[in-house]
Amino acid sequence: MKCTDVLVIGGSAAGLASALASKSHYPEKSVTLVRKETKVAIPCGIPYIFGSLENTDQDILPDAGLIKSGVEIIIDEVTSLEGKGKTARLKRAGELTYDKLIIATGSRPVVPEWLQGARLENVYTVPKDLVYLDTMKNELKGKENIVVIGAGFIGIEMSDELKKTGKKVTLVELQTNVLPLAFDPDLAQEAESILKERGIEVLTGHGVKEILGKEHVEGVKIAYGETEEILEADAVILSMGYTPNVDLARDLEDITFNRDGFIKVDEYMRTDHPDVFAVGDCAEKRDFFTRKRSKAMLASIACAEARVAGMNLYKLSTLKTIGGTIAIFSTALNGTGFGAAGLTETVAREEGFDIIVGKFEGVDRHPGLLNHPHKQIVKLIAGRENGIILGGEVMGGSSAGELINIIGLIIQNKMNVNSLLTMQIGTHPMLTASPAAYPLTKAAELIAKEFWHN
Amino acid sequence: MKCTDVLVIGGSAAGLASALASKSHYPEKSVTLVRKETKVAIPCGIPYIFGSLENTDQDILPDAGLIKSGVEIIIDEVTSLEGKGKTARLKRAGELTYDKLIIATGSRPVVPEWLQGARLENVYTVPKDLVYLDTMKNELKGKENIVVIGAGFIGIEMSDELKKTGKKVTLVELQTNVLPLAFDPDLAQEAESILKERGIEVLTGHGVKEILGKEHVEGVKIAYGETEEILEADAVILSMGYTPNVDLARDLEDITFNRDGFIKVDEYMRTDHPDVFAVGDCAEKRDFFTRKRSKAMLASIACAEARVAGMNLYKLSTLKTIGGTIAIFSTALNGTGFGAAGLTETVAREEGFDIIVGKFEGVDRHPGLLNHPHKQIVKLIAGRENGIILGGEVMGGSSAGELINIIGLIIQNKMNVNSLLTMQIGTHPMLTASPAAYPLTKAAELIAKEFWHN
Repeated sequence: MKCTDVLVIGGSAAGLASALASKSHYPEKSVTLVRKETKVAIPCGIPYIFGSLENTDQDILPDAGLIKSGVEIIIDEVTSLEGKGKTARLKRAGELTYDKLIIATGSRPVVPEWLQGARLENVYTVPKDLVYLDTMKNELKGKENIVVIGAGFIGIEMSDELKKTGKKVTLVELQTNVLPLAFDPDLAQEAESILKERGIEVLTGHGVKEILGKEHVEGVKIAYGETEEILEADAVILSMGYTPNVDLARDLEDITFNRDGFIKVDEYMRTDHPDVFAVGDCAEKRDFFTRKRSKAMLASIACAEARVAGMNLYKLSTLKTIGGTIAIFSTALNGTGFGAAGLTETVAREEGFDIIVGKFEGVDRHPGLLNHPHKQIVKLIAGRENGIILGGEVMGGSSAGELINIIGLIIQNKMNVNSLLTMQIGTHPMLTASPAAYPLTKAAELIAKEFWHN
Repeated sequence: MKCTDVLVIGGSAAGLASALASKSHYPEKSVTLVRKETKVAIPCGIPYIFGSLENTDQDILPDAGLIKSGVEIIIDEVTSLEGKGKTARLKRAGELTYDKLIIATGSRPVVPEWLQGARLENVYTVPKDLVYLDTMKNELKGKENIVVIGAGFIGIEMSDELKKTGKKVTLVELQTNVLPLAFDPDLAQEAESILKERGIEVLTGHGVKEILGKEHVEGVKIAYGETEEILEADAVILSMGYTPNVDLARDLEDITFNRDGFIKVDEYMRTDHPDVFAVGDCAEKRDFFTRKRSKAMLASIACAEARVAGMNLYKLSTLKTIGGTIAIFSTALNGTGFGAAGLTETVAREEGFDIIVGKFEGVDRHPGLLNHPHKQIVKLIAGRENGIILGGEVMGGSSAGELINIIGLIIQNKMNVNSLLTMQIGTHPMLTASPAAYPLTKAAELIAKEFWHN
């Protein structure tokens, strides 16, 4: 029987990062990562396989870092875990005992039970499975009419990429806006406009009723209020969210799950069993501000959790914890970057926060006609009582990804609007907005005016 | 005699931003901005007038914001200030009395007294003066051989822009590296390589001895150690730094100056006279960590100071102060962005800090071949005792400008390496590095390994 000090199950971002962190902080311990996949997809890159990238081989998470750091990789499937003991049973390699276990089994695409026709041929989901994705890419080649259901990040990115290959793409979303969880309607509208300009038909406020066809999909029945309509479809892509993959975790007797099906963890990423950690899409998250259960699933969250688990495996540190999930999203559509962090205006109001909103629109270069300038929007949401920044949304050029990370850091440090007014920044004509019209400061000024008059 | 509540002298970034902040925070007060220039250059854009931009008209700071907010602009020159009273004498418009004064008179290019030939024709400096810059651009048109003296930001940007117009450019720098104040030699080498690839001759370690010629410049005598050499030159550009312009401030009896000639101010940007504020290049700065006098001059620093002055004019707020200058620089050379914030490794060691350095090299996209990827380097400097981040330097694509602002915020919040390890970020294939190889976190991990073993 084989044994390891630390066993990591799962090979995507959460598994990779926790194995690396474990080995980095406890170099004397043996760390073994077991995963099913020979090659692992870079999760965030998956939509780009269908357009910008030539094939799945261009979206592979390299093993070099793991190998170099001394992590042992076993390509095999863990079929079960001993309920009370410390043994994992593998499909091919027999039993493997461990001292500490990190569960990083990720998530699976949601296929609603009620959705008739969801199992027809040419109805696809977007799993992190290269074999599936390869086949899917191949099969989509001959298809002309694609209906994408669900306009979250995966839905809009898949739509945009498929459109790049010349297909007719219809994007159906039940909510009144695309990206309804991450963005308020105003910023979401900007994203929707870009999708429409690209030639994608965007049907918001439309629910899917049924997928039609005998063997192959032929159409999708959708409804806007009482009005039903049938869309022709040669293929359907379901991007209706993901559900935590916790089948294996259910083998362990001491582990508990929250009402959404995520493995319960504390801020050290420990489950109810002190030697078992869970990280990434399968692990419970709590919102940084509302403290409610969060369903956010992002590779960046997974990596942050993975580092925390790796650091706390053998000795706890109150300095190295996840104090709540901020959920920092970003995406790009036709050269326009979008980012969101923390609470949206909509959610903040729903949750009962008394807020002030500041929104500034400028340009990401100065002078504004230098070096491919791009319109830049920053929206900040602050508590009326204390001016603390609760959330932010940005739109801009290629710097939008790091700009939203600045807002993430503002949130994580619980900075308030006064700190933002005295925030020191660097600016450059070719790289940023002007110092006199830096969008974060300007949005903060708008909030400050209202805040001081409270 | 005309009177105003708040008088701002100077129309560049510091003057503009302080007039706006004054009016914004004290809308009931009259705010008057007096400046000499009919049109004001966007200061950071000046080098780009000589290459990327067609003419100076494309680099104008708009007056619309000032006018819209109700600031009165007077195009005139303040010739003197009454020593004890509250009156400014203007060249054309007579006298103007004020209640509060904000001095934003900026800086002037240094022309060393000892440098023979510095007043020859076709020897230029780079002032914030559109009339001068227009003439200079025009005169440079016929010139082939340009020698730029001093490889700070203005020097390298001028060299790069003039090279774009097809000229032969030689850049001379006394220090062993370009950008010697903002960057350590390793990052500076990256910038130097780009300049050389562009065809600029870069002569570091070379001091200028004399500018040769009768009326017009004909050459520049430089020296490398004992070895002298003469460079042919049709024009010379002196980018040897800037000195605070404090002529007017010297009229005021209660104002004092530091040993470098800057107006002494406190953290509210007040001079020794309670009703007189000074902001921008003419105002004293103290380094955030060393607390020593700093000579950093940046429009972004000026704007931060201007906001603080504007907010504290009529009532002081301990929340809205400049607690020390971080100095966040950024620039771009041929599509590569560079940024620096806080202490360099070199300065930190010179100043006696016991430090740990972490440097990570990655790529700013994931997968690394998507959407114009760019090599990305992050170097962090942390105190060995407490892990607090003292400085950072970055190189990358167009997101480098915001990436260095993240480091600026880390410094301003006095975050330590543990906080960086649990920092929550967002990532996206098209916009950032991968979450498992995010350069800030990776550089922090390298520091952490050494920090924990102290």
